[in-house]
Amino acid sequence: MSGTSEKRFLARYRAEAFPRPSVAVDLVILTIVDCELRVLLVERKEHPFRGEWALPGGFLRVGAKRGDFGEDLDAAAERELREETGLSSGVYLEQLYTFGKANRDPRTRVLSVAHYALVRPDLVPLVRPGGDVGEVAWHEARRPPRLAFDHREILQTALARIRGKIDYTDIAFELVPPTFTIQELRAVHEVVKGAHQDPGNFRKRFERMVEDGLIERAPGKRLTASKPARVYRFRRE
Amino acid sequence: MSGTSEKRFLARYRAEAFPRPSVAVDLVILTIVDCELRVLLVERKEHPFRGEWALPGGFLRVGAKRGDFGEDLDAAAERELREETGLSSGVYLEQLYTFGKANRDPRTRVLSVAHYALVRPDLVPLVRPGGDVGEVAWHEARRPPRLAFDHREILQTALARIRGKIDYTDIAFELVPPTFTIQELRAVHEVVKGAHQDPGNFRKRFERMVEDGLIERAPGKRLTASKPARVYRFRRE
Repeated sequence: MSGTSEKRFLARYRAEAFPRPSVAVDLVILTIVDCELRVLLVERKEHPFRGEWALPGGFLRVGAKRGDFGEDLDAAAERELREETGLSSGVYLEQLYTFGKANRDPRTRVLSVAHYALVRPDLVPLVRPGGDVGEVAWHEARRPPRLAFDHREILQTALARIRGKIDYTDIAFELVPPTFTIQELRAVHEVVKGAHQDPGNFRKRFERMVEDGLIERAPGKRLTASKPARVYRFRRE
Repeated sequence: MSGTSEKRFLARYRAEAFPRPSVAVDLVILTIVDCELRVLLVERKEHPFRGEWALPGGFLRVGAKRGDFGEDLDAAAERELREETGLSSGVYLEQLYTFGKANRDPRTRVLSVAHYALVRPDLVPLVRPGGDVGEVAWHEARRPPRLAFDHREILQTALARIRGKIDYTDIAFELVPPTFTIQELRAVHEVVKGAHQDPGNFRKRFERMVEDGLIERAPGKRLTASKPARVYRFRRE
């Protein structure tokens, strides 16, 4: 296409502009504290749903000029995570699902590209919520308070996703400290699945992961209620 | 919030309007023909990428008036599928991923909420592509022609998704005719995974699915190169 005809095309394209949606990036930030799955929630200071709890998030930054169409979607999720937690690394972040019911926000058309993040328990004390929000707190993920918008559905989708993934991916290691005992890793599986895991079966599975080179012994031992336990670490290649 | 303060809020909200992205719904429509995974592609008649192959799709319809914010995202995907194939039922449709690189469309900021659809081989002859498009054709999904935009990445993501899901979900049944032989179901697994499946192991797995009530015998037999084979069907509850 020649420069002129492209310009003509673009002029026509812009003239035929139709309404566009806003796009939010909302975050389901999860961790495990005291053998309980928890989610980071913020209290809304603005209409709509003022005073209710919501998932943290914000709007995708979009540019309207050629050569500057704004930030990548992935970058927006990373920025929001940084703004909401103060953590810039060591946190697992993945796109979850895009929620797009026409009336999910009473103000205007807003799509939510939801992401979920897993924060290792040793990083929880470092979380410094920022941004222009009211109260921020960790809540029980399975028994959350009333949530704004469709955020309960988004949270449920995230819980189902990690429950489905824990058996065939490495995500369990995103929810234990850098070194862990067999019992600690089993507790992560139990908390994520919401179901008891047989210790004998889990130990066999754990030993297979060691044989496969996924996990290795780490120096030292962990004091436990009974005898000191061996500690291990995840081997990232 | 009282009616007046809500009105004031909304006026301010609209005054602070910032650029919004366009949102497209693109479809990876897959089937298996002659033991080969195929994808439905359309030839672009318009700038950009005129003359190149692309995934079928279109824009989410968004309304700007309160009480009419347009169509649900799910409804948009179903509408596009209907428009692109002429099929209104019997097709498996699921959201895949939202692609949001800032510069993925040279015209303006466009997010693609990609979906994938699985068309049973018996429905393929009924596919009647519609819409304002150029040529439409099934192509080898693993060796596609050059694709417009980031559509190659979207296609690869869909192939990885079904490869990952075929072992622990029912999606294989979306790619066989309503009745099928063990060999036909094994062929689906081989084609989706791109790898040979041991017939003995697959038969054991198949028998477990019969025992679990997931599959049942169907009336009749299928003529094959050797002796007539038993046919089965998937039991949806």
